[in-house]
Amino acid sequence: MHFDLKHTDSKTKARAGELHTDHGVIETPIFMPVGTAGTVKGVHQHELKDDIAAQIILGNTYHLFLRPGLEVIEGAGGLHKFNGWDRPILTDSGGYQVYSLSGARKITEEGVKFQSHHDGSYHFFTPERAIDIQRTIGADIIMAFDECTPYPCDYNYAKRSMHMTHRWLQRCMNQMNATESKYGYDQVLFPIVQGSTYKDLRTESAETIASHNAFGNAIGGLSVGEPDEDLYEMTDLVCGILPTEKPRYLMGVGTPQNLLECIAMGVDMFDCVMPTRNARHGLIFTSEGTMNMKNEKWANDFTPLDPNGTSYVDSFYTKAYVRHLIKSKEYLGAQITSIHNLAFYLALVKEARVRILNGTFSAWKDEMIPKLGRRL
Amino acid sequence: MHFDLKHTDSKTKARAGELHTDHGVIETPIFMPVGTAGTVKGVHQHELKDDIAAQIILGNTYHLFLRPGLEVIEGAGGLHKFNGWDRPILTDSGGYQVYSLSGARKITEEGVKFQSHHDGSYHFFTPERAIDIQRTIGADIIMAFDECTPYPCDYNYAKRSMHMTHRWLQRCMNQMNATESKYGYDQVLFPIVQGSTYKDLRTESAETIASHNAFGNAIGGLSVGEPDEDLYEMTDLVCGILPTEKPRYLMGVGTPQNLLECIAMGVDMFDCVMPTRNARHGLIFTSEGTMNMKNEKWANDFTPLDPNGTSYVDSFYTKAYVRHLIKSKEYLGAQITSIHNLAFYLALVKEARVRILNGTFSAWKDEMIPKLGRRL
Repeated sequence: MHFDLKHTDSKTKARAGELHTDHGVIETPIFMPVGTAGTVKGVHQHELKDDIAAQIILGNTYHLFLRPGLEVIEGAGGLHKFNGWDRPILTDSGGYQVYSLSGARKITEEGVKFQSHHDGSYHFFTPERAIDIQRTIGADIIMAFDECTPYPCDYNYAKRSMHMTHRWLQRCMNQMNATESKYGYDQVLFPIVQGSTYKDLRTESAETIASHNAFGNAIGGLSVGEPDEDLYEMTDLVCGILPTEKPRYLMGVGTPQNLLECIAMGVDMFDCVMPTRNARHGLIFTSEGTMNMKNEKWANDFTPLDPNGTSYVDSFYTKAYVRHLIKSKEYLGAQITSIHNLAFYLALVKEARVRILNGTFSAWKDEMIPKLGRRL
Repeated sequence: MHFDLKHTDSKTKARAGELHTDHGVIETPIFMPVGTAGTVKGVHQHELKDDIAAQIILGNTYHLFLRPGLEVIEGAGGLHKFNGWDRPILTDSGGYQVYSLSGARKITEEGVKFQSHHDGSYHFFTPERAIDIQRTIGADIIMAFDECTPYPCDYNYAKRSMHMTHRWLQRCMNQMNATESKYGYDQVLFPIVQGSTYKDLRTESAETIASHNAFGNAIGGLSVGEPDEDLYEMTDLVCGILPTEKPRYLMGVGTPQNLLECIAMGVDMFDCVMPTRNARHGLIFTSEGTMNMKNEKWANDFTPLDPNGTSYVDSFYTKAYVRHLIKSKEYLGAQITSIHNLAFYLALVKEARVRILNGTFSAWKDEMIPKLGRRL
């Protein structure tokens, strides 16, 4: 695996690159659809390829560990074989879900004890175990086991937690070095910068993470409720410290505007449940702004769902029909809006890449941001 | 519109025909997927065409009348334009849903007053109104407004109800004659034989319906809980009376075995929610028997979903993956099983047609029936 930085924008810090994996090349900046339980909700695998043009998807370690479980995934020969997605997969470490979904959990230096949200059964994740699990799931990109602090977060808690995350990182790296790729293809580790919204902590964390010389680096603990200004300030600060020649992944972000702003700061990779979760609630993103498909105003609008959309659903289905489906809670409504939103996100980062390469990114971004924020 | 009877089997009463509509030719015997609210649940329109090979779908008048409502459908230019399905559509008359879904309803000679299951609002359907609504929805095949009696049904109630259904039929036919096709293409009326499970009533009803010389004829009031023997006895009896040169539609039937048995009696058209409803519960039909995808036995079975299946989902997805999706209540599980079941039903009637045309239907049916009934 290797990352080639192709071009850096002259007016912003936006970058265009290529992340080469054994499951194919990822052109950055990239958005990664979230496939929590080994499926991007409502979307067939061939639709991810043909209609959305996804280049890499996420799997959630916590969910996959509990269901279908490691025995099944290993029996299949890894997640790629299990779900039929033969392009790259990134897995989170399970930490975030343990904190946000589990009722009872206890964090110690050794690791995290938690209860399954399905059946209340007890489980224990350590940095070493998180690596082993992700090796078994078969992720191309494995995330370090960290603690994602909430917002707001007490300074002293954020500092102590960050230092533990740094110690856990060393254990993750040791475990990566002590184990081999499970299924014959390369698996690499991304460490995660923490430090809440505190500049000195973020600086310390970014410097520590940078010193490990990992394949790529991630920024965690953002998009957890903080104002956009904090998100941008921390992202810009951290991007200034992380090495330029390695891919940078901003976890859990965000809106289309967030993506463009953070691309301008030098972020290469994004993931977020927003396009799919909002889709299921009938909220779609377009190049002219957002639309709530439940609104009465679309009831008799027989024009295409999104005349500027890149997916076939945008021209085949009308606003009125999609509104009817969403109002009626029909599967097809969520299927259409999920394809639309993901195709829009992928088209947006693809356009950003073209603009970075041809030197028009900055002007294009300034033109897009106000449009993306409109409500249609 | 016209119906060409191409061939009748020599050993059974099975028939192969062609039903020509302004939206294309339907090769019979045919199964019609149910698209209750203008969408076959979990299935994209292009999947209906490309992966399932559906030739005609159903819409439910009751549901479409309440949501999105006639104003929207008429504004779109009819249901075909509204949902993007450009092949034939058949609508039921709304009667069945009024009886089965509505809480408060009152049947009089004039029609049926009922409450919406959405908001409790009151509505009144008459035979004339049912025709007008179906004209506006834009069905190629319009069903007469009837009363579908429950099972079991008191003889005297069944007799009175049947006579009312016959009087309503005359009003439906008058209304059809007094009105024109709404969108330029032909719309035809199918009357419905009733009479519960009483041979004398079924005989009288079939003779009455046959005398109207409609484009095609339907058998209603079956598949409402009666034993299969009653279903078969009534269907066989009625098929012996209905004119041979017109298509025969057995409403709401049924299992794959039901289809083959009733094809052998001379039925040309079927619809049923079973393939899609069961799919959403993880139950699939195959040429070797039925499978409950929730079963533990599939957890580690990484073979294709159905090696004999005709749709791409059968070879692309494994049993273990589909089990995981169904157990996890993921959209994609229902999407896959819905495509599978409908593709299986369509492949079954297509094979039946080939067998009828080449004279091997009877032997093939006898071989298939026991297999179809197995639980894998």
